[in-house]
Amino acid sequence: MALLPDLGTEIVIPVCAVIGIIFSLIQWVLVSRVKLSPERKEANNNSKNGFNDCLIEEEEGINEQNVVLECANIQSAIAEGATSFLFTEYQYVGVFMVAFAILIFLFLGSVEGFSTKSQPCTFNKEKFCKPALATAAFSTVSFLLGAFTSVISGFLGMKIATFANARTTLEARKGVGKAFITAFRSGAVMGFLLAANGLLVLYIAISLFKLYYGDDWEGLFESITGYGLGGSSMALFGRVGGGIYTKAADVGADLVGKVERNIPEDDPRNPAVIADNVGDNVGDIAGMGSDLFGSYAESSCAALVVASISSFGIDHDFTAMLYPLLISSMGILVCLITTLFATDFFEIKAVKEIEPALKRQLIISTAIMTIGIAIVTWTCVPPTFTIFNFGAQKVVKNWQLFLCVAVGLWAGLIIGFVTEYYTSNAYSPVQDVADSCRTGAATNVIFGLALGYKSVIIPIFAIAISIFVSFSFAAMYGIAVAALGMLSTIATGLAIDAYGPISDNAGGIAEMAGMSHRIRERTDALDAAGNTTAAIGKGFAIGSAALVSLALFGAFVSRAGVSTVDVLTPKVFIGLIVGAMLPYWFSAMTMKSVGSAALKMVEEVRRQFNTIPGLMEGRAKPDYATCVKISTDASIKEMIPPGALVMLTPLIVGTFFGVETLSGVLAGSLVSGVQIAISASNTGGAWDNAKKYIEAGASEHARTLGPKGSEPHKAAVIGDTIGDPLKDTSGPSLNILIKLMAVESLVFAPFFATHGGLLFKI
Amino acid sequence: MALLPDLGTEIVIPVCAVIGIIFSLIQWVLVSRVKLSPERKEANNNSKNGFNDCLIEEEEGINEQNVVLECANIQSAIAEGATSFLFTEYQYVGVFMVAFAILIFLFLGSVEGFSTKSQPCTFNKEKFCKPALATAAFSTVSFLLGAFTSVISGFLGMKIATFANARTTLEARKGVGKAFITAFRSGAVMGFLLAANGLLVLYIAISLFKLYYGDDWEGLFESITGYGLGGSSMALFGRVGGGIYTKAADVGADLVGKVERNIPEDDPRNPAVIADNVGDNVGDIAGMGSDLFGSYAESSCAALVVASISSFGIDHDFTAMLYPLLISSMGILVCLITTLFATDFFEIKAVKEIEPALKRQLIISTAIMTIGIAIVTWTCVPPTFTIFNFGAQKVVKNWQLFLCVAVGLWAGLIIGFVTEYYTSNAYSPVQDVADSCRTGAATNVIFGLALGYKSVIIPIFAIAISIFVSFSFAAMYGIAVAALGMLSTIATGLAIDAYGPISDNAGGIAEMAGMSHRIRERTDALDAAGNTTAAIGKGFAIGSAALVSLALFGAFVSRAGVSTVDVLTPKVFIGLIVGAMLPYWFSAMTMKSVGSAALKMVEEVRRQFNTIPGLMEGRAKPDYATCVKISTDASIKEMIPPGALVMLTPLIVGTFFGVETLSGVLAGSLVSGVQIAISASNTGGAWDNAKKYIEAGASEHARTLGPKGSEPHKAAVIGDTIGDPLKDTSGPSLNILIKLMAVESLVFAPFFATHGGLLFKI
Repeated sequence: MALLPDLGTEIVIPVCAVIGIIFSLIQWVLVSRVKLSPERKEANNNSKNGFNDCLIEEEEGINEQNVVLECANIQSAIAEGATSFLFTEYQYVGVFMVAFAILIFLFLGSVEGFSTKSQPCTFNKEKFCKPALATAAFSTVSFLLGAFTSVISGFLGMKIATFANARTTLEARKGVGKAFITAFRSGAVMGFLLAANGLLVLYIAISLFKLYYGDDWEGLFESITGYGLGGSSMALFGRVGGGIYTKAADVGADLVGKVERNIPEDDPRNPAVIADNVGDNVGDIAGMGSDLFGSYAESSCAALVVASISSFGIDHDFTAMLYPLLISSMGILVCLITTLFATDFFEIKAVKEIEPALKRQLIISTAIMTIGIAIVTWTCVPPTFTIFNFGAQKVVKNWQLFLCVAVGLWAGLIIGFVTEYYTSNAYSPVQDVADSCRTGAATNVIFGLALGYKSVIIPIFAIAISIFVSFSFAAMYGIAVAALGMLSTIATGLAIDAYGPISDNAGGIAEMAGMSHRIRERTDALDAAGNTTAAIGKGFAIGSAALVSLALFGAFVSRAGVSTVDVLTPKVFIGLIVGAMLPYWFSAMTMKSVGSAALKMVEEVRRQFNTIPGLMEGRAKPDYATCVKISTDASIKEMIPPGALVMLTPLIVGTFFGVETLSGVLAGSLVSGVQIAISASNTGGAWDNAKKYIEAGASEHARTLGPKGSEPHKAAVIGDTIGDPLKDTSGPSLNILIKLMAVESLVFAPFFATHGGLLFKI
Repeated sequence: MALLPDLGTEIVIPVCAVIGIIFSLIQWVLVSRVKLSPERKEANNNSKNGFNDCLIEEEEGINEQNVVLECANIQSAIAEGATSFLFTEYQYVGVFMVAFAILIFLFLGSVEGFSTKSQPCTFNKEKFCKPALATAAFSTVSFLLGAFTSVISGFLGMKIATFANARTTLEARKGVGKAFITAFRSGAVMGFLLAANGLLVLYIAISLFKLYYGDDWEGLFESITGYGLGGSSMALFGRVGGGIYTKAADVGADLVGKVERNIPEDDPRNPAVIADNVGDNVGDIAGMGSDLFGSYAESSCAALVVASISSFGIDHDFTAMLYPLLISSMGILVCLITTLFATDFFEIKAVKEIEPALKRQLIISTAIMTIGIAIVTWTCVPPTFTIFNFGAQKVVKNWQLFLCVAVGLWAGLIIGFVTEYYTSNAYSPVQDVADSCRTGAATNVIFGLALGYKSVIIPIFAIAISIFVSFSFAAMYGIAVAALGMLSTIATGLAIDAYGPISDNAGGIAEMAGMSHRIRERTDALDAAGNTTAAIGKGFAIGSAALVSLALFGAFVSRAGVSTVDVLTPKVFIGLIVGAMLPYWFSAMTMKSVGSAALKMVEEVRRQFNTIPGLMEGRAKPDYATCVKISTDASIKEMIPPGALVMLTPLIVGTFFGVETLSGVLAGSLVSGVQIAISASNTGGAWDNAKKYIEAGASEHARTLGPKGSEPHKAAVIGDTIGDPLKDTSGPSLNILIKLMAVESLVFAPFFATHGGLLFKI
C-alpha cells in the first residue's frame, strides 16, 4: 500500500485547492490596488516617465484625469460587451446542455432497460454493481457539473482580464516592469482559480458520489467521466463561438481600418475596435480557459476510469486511486512557487527581459514539478501494482509511473520551445517569412504555410515518444497520466497564456484613450511576447489534447469491450479515413464562418465611415454597439453547425456503425487533427510576428522591409489576416474536436456496446 | 475454371495492347497533318476566321508566314527546353535508380543469406519455391523495367505535347472545334501509348519471368512487384522535380510580369515565359504520365501478388490470375470507342460545348466500361474462388468481384464530378471565392482554403464506400481491383488531362507569336476547360492512389506475415501518428522549394528587365535560357530532400522499428495524405478558376469584380499564385508519397520480416 494514508489524501487535495484559490485572491487584491480613478494623479505625476514633451504639457492638469477616466470608460465598454456576449452564449448553450443531459440519461438508462436492480459488474463478474440507471443519473449530474465548472472558469477568466487590461495600461506609464507584473498577476489569478476550482469540484463530486456508490468504484468513476464531457462540451462552444467572434471583429476591423482607411490598429475611430477587444477576452481568455479546463478534467477522468478497473480500484486503494488528483494538487503548489519568480524574486527592467522571463516560468515550473511528481509517486503509489490493459492486467512499478508523468511534462516543454522557435521573430523561420514579403503576399503565404507544415515535425516526435514510453510502461493509464503531467503546470501555463490578450487589450486601450506613443510601444512589447506565449500555450493545449484524446480512446475501447482495433478490417479502416477527414470538414466550417462574419463586419464598418459625418476626422463617435452585435449574432449562429458535427458524429457512428468503426474514427481524427491544429496555429503565429517584426524594425534586416505602409508590410498584413482564423478559430478548436469525440464515446460506451452498430445488425 | 482458355488470355492481352498502340499512332498521324510550315498559307487564307480587321490586314502576305514560323520557333524552343530538362533529370535519377537497384538486390538477397538453394514457400510450406536470391535478382530487373517504362511514358507524353501545342494554336485560327480536336487527339496519343505500353511491358515481363519460375507463382509475382516500385520511384522524381520546375517558373514569371511590370501572361518580353511553358510539359504532362503509370503498375502488382497466394495462384488458373491485365485490356478497347465520340461522332462548334464534351468522355467511358468489366469478369473468373485474407482464405463469388471493380470505377467518376463542382467557375463555390476578392487577398485565401477543406468530404466518403464494399467482398484483392477499376479508363483520363497543358501552351504560343486577341480568347476557353479537367485528373490520381496504396499495404502486411495491425499497441500507434505527419513534412519541403526557386527566378527576371535595354519596349530579346537553367538547377537540387524522405522512411522504419510500426506509418500517411492532396489541388484549382472567372467577365456578377487590373482581380492573382505550388507541386506529389512508401514496403517485406525491427530486438 501507499505511504500516504487515505485520511491524508482526503486532507491534502482540498487543502491544496484552497491554497490555490487563496493565492489567486491575493494576486487579485494586488492587481486591484491599481486605481482606475483620477485620485492617483498627484502621486503619479513624478513617476510617469513615459510621456514625450508635448504630451506631458498637454496632459498636465485636466488631461491626466481625462486619460484615466477614458481608460476606465473603455474598459467598462469592453467588459460590458464581453459579459453580454458570454451571457447570450451561455443561454443558447444552456438549452443545448439540458437537452444533451436528457439524451445522456436516456441513452445510458436504456442500457439495461431502465432497470433499478443491481447488475453484475462489467469487469468483475463476481461482484454486483449499481444499476445502469444510477450511472445514467450520476453521469448526467457530473456532466452538468463539468459544464458549470467550465462556464465558471471561462467567465471568471474573462472578468479578471477585463478588470486588469486598463490597469496594465495605466501601469505602463510607470514603466514596463510594473505593467508586466500587473498583466502577469492577472493571468495568474485566472490560472490558479481555474486549476484549483477544477480540482476542488472534481474532488467534491467524487466524495459525494462515493456516499451512494460505496464499494462500487467501477460505477463511481464511470459516472464521473460525465464531468470531462461536460467540461469539453462547454469548451467546444466557448472556443468555436469565441473564436468566430474575435476573428470576425479582428479581420473586419483590419480590412477596413488598416487596409482601406490606413488608420492604425485599435484606432478609436474604427467602429469594430471595441468588438475586437471584446473578442480577445471571450475568445482567447474565456475560450482558452474552458479548453484547458476541459483537457484537465478529461485526463483526470480517463486516468480514474482506467484505475478503477485496475488494482487500485480492485484493492480499494483510495490514495493510489486519486493519484491523478494528487499530481494536480502538487502542480498547484509548484506553480505557486514558480509565480513568485516572476512577480517577486526578479524584476523586469527592460523590454528585452519580458520574453526570457516568461520562458523562465516554463522551465522553472517544469524542473520543480519533476521533483514534485517524484514525491507524489513515491508517497502515494505502491511500489508495484497492476493496470488494466485491454482485457489483461499489466504489472507496473512506481518508477515506471513516474517516468510516464515526467515524459508528458517534458514533452510539453519541448513542444513549447519548438513552437516558440517557429513563431517568435527572434529566430530565422519567422524572419524568412518576413523576408518573403518582398515579393508580395503570395510568397508570404507560401512560406508561411510551409513553415506551419514544418513545425509539426518535432512536436509529433515528442508526442510519439511520450506515447511510446507511457503506453509501453503503463498502457492507457500511462497515457492518461502523461497528459496529466503535461497539464500539471496548467496554472503557470494559463497565467502566461492569459497574459497575452491582457497586454493586447492594454495596448488597445492606450491607443483608444489617445495616450502617448511611448506607452503604446511598451504595451506592444508586452504584446509581442504575449503572441509567442499564446502560441506556446496553444502548443501545450494541442499536445495535451492529443494525449488526453488517446487516453480517453483507450478508456472507451476498454469500456466498450473491444480488445483490438485492427486497421486491416473494413469497419475500422473506413472509420480511420473518415475520421481523418473530419478535422478538414470542421475547419472548412469554422474558417468560412469567420470569413462570412468578417465580410458582414466590413460592410458595417464601411457603412459607418461613409454615413457618419466627421467620423474619419475624429469629431463623431462610431456606433460600437452594432459591431458588437454583428459579432455576437454571427458567432452564436455559426457555432451550431461545427458544434453539431462534433457532438453528433460519435452518436451516429456508434449507434449505426458500432464501436469498431467509432474506434477508427477516433484514431483517424486524432492523428490527422493534431497535425492541422499545430500547423494552423504556428502558421498564424508566424505571420502575426512577421508583421510585428517589420513594424518594430528592430534590426537592419527588418528596416529594409519596413516601415509601416511599405509594400512588404502590406503583404505581411495580408498574411496576418489569413492567419487570424487559422490560429484563433479553426486551429485551437480542433483540440476540442479530438478530445470531445473521444470523451463522448467513453460516456456513451455502455450504450454503444449494448445497442450500437444497428446498420450491421440488419 | 474460367470460360476463357489460357491460350485466349495469352492472345487477348498483347492484341489489345497492340491495338492501343496502333490507335495512338493513328491519332499522331492525324495531328501531324497540321503543318508547321508556311506552305499552307493559300489553303488557309479563306478559312482563318479568327482575325480582327486590323490584324488581318497586318498579317496578310509576309506576316502570315511570319506567324507560322514564329509558332514553329517557339515550339521548338519549348521542346528543346523540355527535352534538355528531362535528360538532365533522367541522368541524376538514373544514378539513383542504379544505386537503389543494387540496394534492392542486396537487401532481398540477404533474406536467406544469398543462398542459391530452393526454400519452402512462404505461404505453402509443402512446396519448394525458388531461392530468395532469384527473387532479389528478378525484383531488381523488374524494378529497372518499371523505371524505364515510366521514363518512356513521361518522355513520349512530353514529346507529343510539345509537338501538338503550336499545331493547336494554328488550328485555333480555323475555329475552336478544330483546335479542340487537335489538342484532344494529342492527349489521346499520350493516353493510349501509356496505357498500352504499361500493359505490354508488364505482360512480357510476366511471360519471360515465368520461363524461369515455372510453377512457383508466389515467387514470380513477388518479384514482379519491383515493376510497380520502379514505376513509382521514377514518378516521384518526375512529379516533384517537374512540379518544382513548372511552378518556380510560373510563380516567378507572374510575380514580376503580371504584378510588377503589368504585362500579360505569356508575354514574350518576360524572360521566364519559355521556362513557364516548358514547365507545363515536364510537370503536368511528363509528371502526370509517370504518376498515373505508377498507379496502374502498382495496382496491377498488388492484385497479382495477392492473387498468387489465393486460389488463382494455388490452382494455377492463368486466365483468372491475369484478371487485372484483362481488365486493363478491356479498358483500352472501351477508351478507344469513347475517344471516337469526342473526335468523330460529335463536333465542337462553340466555346461552351468544350467542357460538356470532356465531361461526356468520362461518363461514356465509365458506362461502357461497366459492361466491359462484367464481360471480363464472367468470362475470365470462375464462379467461386478463394482469396487470401490475412492468414485465412475467403470465398468470393464472381458477381462480388464485378462489384469490387465497378465500385472503384464509379467512385472515380463521383470524385471527378465533385472535383469539377468545386473547381469549375460555373458553380457557386468558385464564384463565392471570386466574390470574396472584393475585400482583398486575405479573404480570398481564407475562402479558398475553406473550399479545399470542404471539397474532401464527398471524395472521402466515396473512397470509404468503395473500400468498404471491395474489402468486405474480396479483402485486399478487392481493393486492388477497385483501384484497377478506377484506373481502367486511364487512357481517356490521361487524354483529357494532357489536353489541358497542351491548350495552355497553345495559348502561350499565340500570345508570344503576337497573334490576334481572338485566337487567344479561343485558346483561353480551351485552357479554362483544361483547368477543370486537370483538377478532375488530379482527383482520379488521388482517389486511385488511396486505393492502390491500401491494396499495397494489404499485400505488404500479408507478405510480412502480420495478421493484425492493432492501433491499441504502442508500436502501431506511434507509426500511425508519425505517418500522418509525413505528408506535412513532405509538403513543407516541396512548397518551400518552389518558393525559394521562384524567388531566384524573380531576381533573374528583374535583373533582365533592369539591365537589357529595350526589353520592356519589345525591341530586345530576353535571355530565356538563363531562366530555363534556373528552373532546371533548382528542381534537380530541390527534389532530392523530399525524394529521400519518401524513399528512406520505409527502409529506416522497417529496419529499425519493424513491420508493425511500418504498418502504422503506411496507414497514417495514407489517411492523412489523401486529405491534404485533395484539398491542396482543389484549393489551387479554385483560385486559378476564380481568377479566370474575373478575367473572362462572362456574367453580370463577374463583371462587377473585373476587369483585369482591378483590386479584386489583383487579389485573385495572389490567390492563384499561392495555389500554384499547392495544386501542381505538393498536392499531386503526395499521391506518390502514399503509394511509393507502400510499394517499397511490399518489395522489401521479405527483408523486414526476417531482419527488421533491430531497435526492439536489442
